Amino acid sequence: MQHAKPLPSYLVQRYHGWKATTYAENAAWYRRLADEGQRPRAMIISCCDSRVHVTSIFGADQGEFFIHRNIANLVPPYEPDGAQHGTSATVEYAVTVLKVAHLVVLGHSRCGGVQGCLDMCSGRAPELETKESFVGRWMDILRPGYERIENVEPEDQAQALEHQAVLVSLENLMTFPFVKEAVEKKNLTLHGLWNDIGAGGLSCYQPEKGTFEPV
Amino acid sequence: MQHAKPLPSYLVQRYHGWKATTYAENAAWYRRLADEGQRPRAMIISCCDSRVHVTSIFGADQGEFFIHRNIANLVPPYEPDGAQHGTSATVEYAVTVLKVAHLVVLGHSRCGGVQGCLDMCSGRAPELETKESFVGRWMDILRPGYERIENVEPEDQAQALEHQAVLVSLENLMTFPFVKEAVEKKNLTLHGLWNDIGAGGLSCYQPEKGTFEPV
Amino acid sequence: MQHAKPLPSYLVQRYHGWKATTYAENAAWYRRLADEGQRPRAMIISCCDSRVHVTSIFGADQGEFFIHRNIANLVPPYEPDGAQHGTSATVEYAVTVLKVAHLVVLGHSRCGGVQGCLDMCSGRAPELETKESFVGRWMDILRPGYERIENVEPEDQAQALEHQAVLVSLENLMTFPFVKEAVEKKNLTLHGLWNDIGAGGLSCYQPEKGTFEPV
Amino acid sequence: MQHAKPLPSYLVQRYHGWKATTYAENAAWYRRLADEGQRPRAMIISCCDSRVHVTSIFGADQGEFFIHRNIANLVPPYEPDGAQHGTSATVEYAVTVLKVAHLVVLGHSRCGGVQGCLDMCSGRAPELETKESFVGRWMDILRPGYERIENVEPEDQAQALEHQAVLVSLENLMTFPFVKEAVEKKNLTLHGLWNDIGAGGLSCYQPEKGTFEPV
Repeated sequence: MQHAKPLPSYLVQRYHGWKATTYAENAAWYRRLADEGQRPRAMIISCCDSRVHVTSIFGADQGEFFIHRNIANLVPPYEPDGAQHGTSATVEYAVTVLKVAHLVVLGHSRCGGVQGCLDMCSGRAPELETKESFVGRWMDILRPGYERIENVEPEDQAQALEHQAVLVSLENLMTFPFVKEAVEKKNLTLHGLWNDIGAGGLSCYQPEKGTFEPV
Repeated sequence: MQHAKPLPSYLVQRYHGWKATTYAENAAWYRRLADEGQRPRAMIISCCDSRVHVTSIFGADQGEFFIHRNIANLVPPYEPDGAQHGTSATVEYAVTVLKVAHLVVLGHSRCGGVQGCLDMCSGRAPELETKESFVGRWMDILRPGYERIENVEPEDQAQALEHQAVLVSLENLMTFPFVKEAVEKKNLTLHGLWNDIGAGGLSCYQPEKGTFEPV
Repeated sequence: MQHAKPLPSYLVQRYHGWKATTYAENAAWYRRLADEGQRPRAMIISCCDSRVHVTSIFGADQGEFFIHRNIANLVPPYEPDGAQHGTSATVEYAVTVLKVAHLVVLGHSRCGGVQGCLDMCSGRAPELETKESFVGRWMDILRPGYERIENVEPEDQAQALEHQAVLVSLENLMTFPFVKEAVEKKNLTLHGLWNDIGAGGLSCYQPEKGTFEPV
Repeated sequence: MQHAKPLPSYLVQRYHGWKATTYAENAAWYRRLADEGQRPRAMIISCCDSRVHVTSIFGADQGEFFIHRNIANLVPPYEPDGAQHGTSATVEYAVTVLKVAHLVVLGHSRCGGVQGCLDMCSGRAPELETKESFVGRWMDILRPGYERIENVEPEDQAQALEHQAVLVSLENLMTFPFVKEAVEKKNLTLHGLWNDIGAGGLSCYQPEKGTFEPV
């Protein structure tokens, strides 16, 4: 691998700052976590978006959350076909090996992936429909969500589809036999959240109302 | 989606703490990030492991890093076959849409996914070899790395394979035409890191030496 | 004291979250509590175990409960010999100075201290029998309880001894002249509780039945 | 034990509220904590005072903190004489069995126990000097602290002695061989805090300055 470069200096500097402060203050705990293994209480599935930091919002410290981040916080349906399913692997590991108690899907406002899906499904982004578009094929997971919101007023469609990205993922999670079993045995609870980046808001899906309500 | 539950109270409390402090102090910046979109300088590919928080290690603030986290921080080879490739979608989005300047693969010590790969490749984990094992199929990406370390002393194999998880990913990244082009045009640099959880160490791959050296 | 370190950052962050929310919403009451002194209605004697939070179970707010927590929620007998008796001091202060109306002893399931006592009394933990074992000497308080349960079926002994930890403490409380007097003058009531951690259960000792019954 | 009474109805009602909300939302985690045992990251030694809730200040959830509460958050010196030392037993269990990473002594303003010690040491509370006074004998632990502050201005003595209650306890902790060893091996860090109840303040002892500074 000849193309690897030294770490940019701004990151080197920040690392040394962390090492001298946060790490130094918590070294005993970090060593113990390393020796005894992790026991996170919850798994969070969140977006890669640089503006959404679940570790900040929930004051997450090392050892607390098993975090998967992908484009638009999507979970595909259960498909044990022998192909590579990175997201399904994270869910399998969290539920069957780590036995987390809570699984949270965290969506957010102004999601570029969801906007791409909206453009693609409404015919405005033919480049996303090609076989070569990884983002387009990934966003196919959200097509069932688009069908439910295509009659929403245009200016409200993006947020409605962001909510659907959470709901479709929660529905797909229940197609995994080990998730379904853990939920039915009350060893696991599922939660759907949506973060308003600009307003710092957080709302939670309430099935009885069918809406996301501020926590 | 009838199975969604209210957010556990300890997370509600922590969110309100964040809202009243970190958010309140930075609301203007968060609003601007929401309105103008993200412009992250770097993408980080890291593990889901609860003990590895790149946001902590690099003092990441909102808007700075586009972060993908999966099992064992792996990137598969370029395979534009129309199937769903969640990790490839994150790379495509970061490099072609966000045009990040740096792409960092961050491995770590005591990685459960890498240990599973080691067990599987050495014949000690037949359950990971089934078609139904999402974790096993995902770790197939690292098989070429195993071949390079199978003659290493047994007690050193885990760490050697954790290093390979970084190197194989960097190699696979270069099979993506848009990554290769951005690297060759010097619009993008690639970096391989490995974090020692217990010691708080961070080392960076140096191609001229062929080793990971402390930053 | 040269060995004191700065507070770990995760606790600093949580404190600031509390200050900006819970404290800010209740500052007037906290100031008044500070100026006028506490007037708690009840004293709770509970275990140090991190899984038992009386403040959570009883929705305790500042000013409501005077709480003593030690290993296995034990109270020794009255012994005014001039030696240091930390637990007896808490009872004396609560009953004679604060004049609490209720005194609750709260035991719990899976108690490590009680298990240690069981191991020690049945000869399986000689290390707890040495003079140097603070835990062993402390658990001596519960030896009279062990004598009452040693004929119980082995699989039921741990819970039976957890119940005895509550009962022996209640009995010992009555050996304190100021407790006995307050009880007899009906200025104080005693209560024995046992919390099932996993099931979230709470049962209360009923003298007429001689058993713990769900509240 | 004939004197035990049913639980007061206000506590029954609160328990049922907790069971239906906090417990219900976290039942999977509580079951797991019960089955797998606790692994608290820190031990807190705090006062019984009803106005000081470390669980509130640090947003403590079940499983996070091993908490000992006694009069004036005091730790006696190491004294392996075979007598009952309840506080020493909690420290022994936390450090040698649970292997906590942090040990925090949390003092507070308007401490009744500290005020009693001040009165006793300055000759204004002869009733606390009797052999029969459990509070008086317990507060003897703080006499070395009084000697250091007796020349402080009278109106500042109470707070100065509250600070000493933290410092004397930290010093005494270092007389326990297992504490000293864990600190020297960097497996344990000690921290001294003082909480201003009315102002919601929190300050941390800094050995290099010799003072408590706001966190």
